[in-house]
Amino acid sequence: MGAGNKAVIYQKVPSGIPVPGEHLTVETVSYDDSAPAPEGGVLLQSLYASIDPYMRGRMRPPEVKSYSPAYETGKPLIARSIAKVLKSNNTNYKEGDLVIAFIPIQQYVALDGGQTATILPLENPFGVEDIRHFLGALGVTGLTAYSSLSEIGKPKKGETIFVSAAAGAVGQIVGQLAKHEGLRVIGSVGSDDKLEYILNELGFDGGFNYKKEKPADALKRLAPEGLDIYYENVGGEHLEAALDALNDFGRIPVCGMISTYNHPPGKQYLIPNITNILRKRLTMRGFIWSDPGFGGSYHSEHQAHVGKWIKEGSFKAVMSETEGIDNVPEAFVGLFHGQNLGKAIIKI
Amino acid sequence: MGAGNKAVIYQKVPSGIPVPGEHLTVETVSYDDSAPAPEGGVLLQSLYASIDPYMRGRMRPPEVKSYSPAYETGKPLIARSIAKVLKSNNTNYKEGDLVIAFIPIQQYVALDGGQTATILPLENPFGVEDIRHFLGALGVTGLTAYSSLSEIGKPKKGETIFVSAAAGAVGQIVGQLAKHEGLRVIGSVGSDDKLEYILNELGFDGGFNYKKEKPADALKRLAPEGLDIYYENVGGEHLEAALDALNDFGRIPVCGMISTYNHPPGKQYLIPNITNILRKRLTMRGFIWSDPGFGGSYHSEHQAHVGKWIKEGSFKAVMSETEGIDNVPEAFVGLFHGQNLGKAIIKI
Repeated sequence: MGAGNKAVIYQKVPSGIPVPGEHLTVETVSYDDSAPAPEGGVLLQSLYASIDPYMRGRMRPPEVKSYSPAYETGKPLIARSIAKVLKSNNTNYKEGDLVIAFIPIQQYVALDGGQTATILPLENPFGVEDIRHFLGALGVTGLTAYSSLSEIGKPKKGETIFVSAAAGAVGQIVGQLAKHEGLRVIGSVGSDDKLEYILNELGFDGGFNYKKEKPADALKRLAPEGLDIYYENVGGEHLEAALDALNDFGRIPVCGMISTYNHPPGKQYLIPNITNILRKRLTMRGFIWSDPGFGGSYHSEHQAHVGKWIKEGSFKAVMSETEGIDNVPEAFVGLFHGQNLGKAIIKI
Repeated sequence: MGAGNKAVIYQKVPSGIPVPGEHLTVETVSYDDSAPAPEGGVLLQSLYASIDPYMRGRMRPPEVKSYSPAYETGKPLIARSIAKVLKSNNTNYKEGDLVIAFIPIQQYVALDGGQTATILPLENPFGVEDIRHFLGALGVTGLTAYSSLSEIGKPKKGETIFVSAAAGAVGQIVGQLAKHEGLRVIGSVGSDDKLEYILNELGFDGGFNYKKEKPADALKRLAPEGLDIYYENVGGEHLEAALDALNDFGRIPVCGMISTYNHPPGKQYLIPNITNILRKRLTMRGFIWSDPGFGGSYHSEHQAHVGKWIKEGSFKAVMSETEGIDNVPEAFVGLFHGQNLGKAIIKI
């Protein structure tokens, strides 16, 4: 027995935005720091965990089907993490190795032989200094952006793309990838600081703060020529405005609809102009990077391009780090209040 | 001068379903039956005209953009037609030839050399007896069904497809094509006669009368395994039910949304579950057969397959014929009251 081991526990299904202390708590769980690694397994120390809006979707009654399984109440939240191998009983891993793992948000995690399937060595061929990028631009977030923009967005030089949540984890990457492809990039954000960031730091061609200007008005002002791609992270009023602003044959990769995640049934923002999909022959498609034939097909290309650009300094990827596992519940709630610039990361 | 020549005139923009005598009238237009065909052109006698729901979309204020141009008030309705060449001043056409033409709904139509681009010889390699099929299963209607089911629906043997307006012009073809591909086919219709038709004549695996059973209830009953394709002709409550019933990676070819065409702004049926596109990674795509790289790529395949099947008798395509140009306004309105079984045709 011995040292404390804190974990973030999912206590019960929220109906709106989760409440720290009620739906999410931080608890000390049992942990024997003198025990060896499990048979065929490893003992990990979590260094960083990624928190993402999709996790809200897992906080649902288990009978509601969705792409990722519902979290189990009373158990820790599972999150993509960077961890260090403390003890190993598996020839593929040795003490000190860094891994990318899909594990509980918990300081120390013991995995048995079977569970090691959820971890992969952290590969860093370009020697990127800040390993946190492997939870962001070089991780699943980056692959999400890269694969969906290519596969669904089909960007063509000279076209115009509108990216919602443009200073967010995925949005900031999509916008920069689109700039690399020669597109005109318009972004929406929720604060003036974020607006300055996408215009001055990321070099977007236009942007607006949706808390100060309606998306429909802003798109008329910033993209009078119409949109060719709407990269959907938000839903609701943003989607409605984009459906009106899109040109014929426009594409809508649907990565997220964060404005809808905390709406109880019956309170959704309803889109009146869905018939534009017909009239303008739009393609709207949802995806998850891990879908068969989706992200996997772009992994090498994504690593090669974005790894090189980050190393060279021609690609920016801001992260908002929260320090300490105790602060995970508040940090998670912050995702829905637009608190973060770029990718939200927890330093455990 | 001389013989009478009746035309269907589009008088003014309707706000709901057009009213015969107010928005659409039948008028006698000038016509000189002793004149030769125009320089480089032809004089046509219209035999059959196709009336289709999309034509409602052209009855709009000209400033509203859509895929086909707005009709001009005070001018005849334009429709896809089968016509006979009465006089020719063009070496590509001789007296008595049958053509497929995109011309005014009018008994006699003179086209000059430039306007002959809107006509094509009617080709009938399989010797199909009923030439009206070239406005239906072997015409643009059939190509619409064939190309969209292939290109967007991507049907796979063993899958389940739900076709709305299943006894309509496009729906009856889509369902039969899907049966040829080995799919389980469920259809919705608006009368018990139509239900009997799709079940007993077309061999669909299931169906329901949406006026007697809600689409959501019917789909639970008829497709408990979920849908893989929803072929969209209707919109509104049908789309909502399908979004709930679709399985992961489902496809929605959007051919029409007839339930929405006559809704004034602000009166649309609003879909609350559009987030299913994200959650289930659905693809929803609008199209028109004439889009670049769309219908044209399937023309030969469509003619070869459907032509052969019709000639053999293994493909049915019912048509609802209205006789007489005087009855066009009422027949057009009938499209929105579900009056027709199969393809609506006017015998001029």
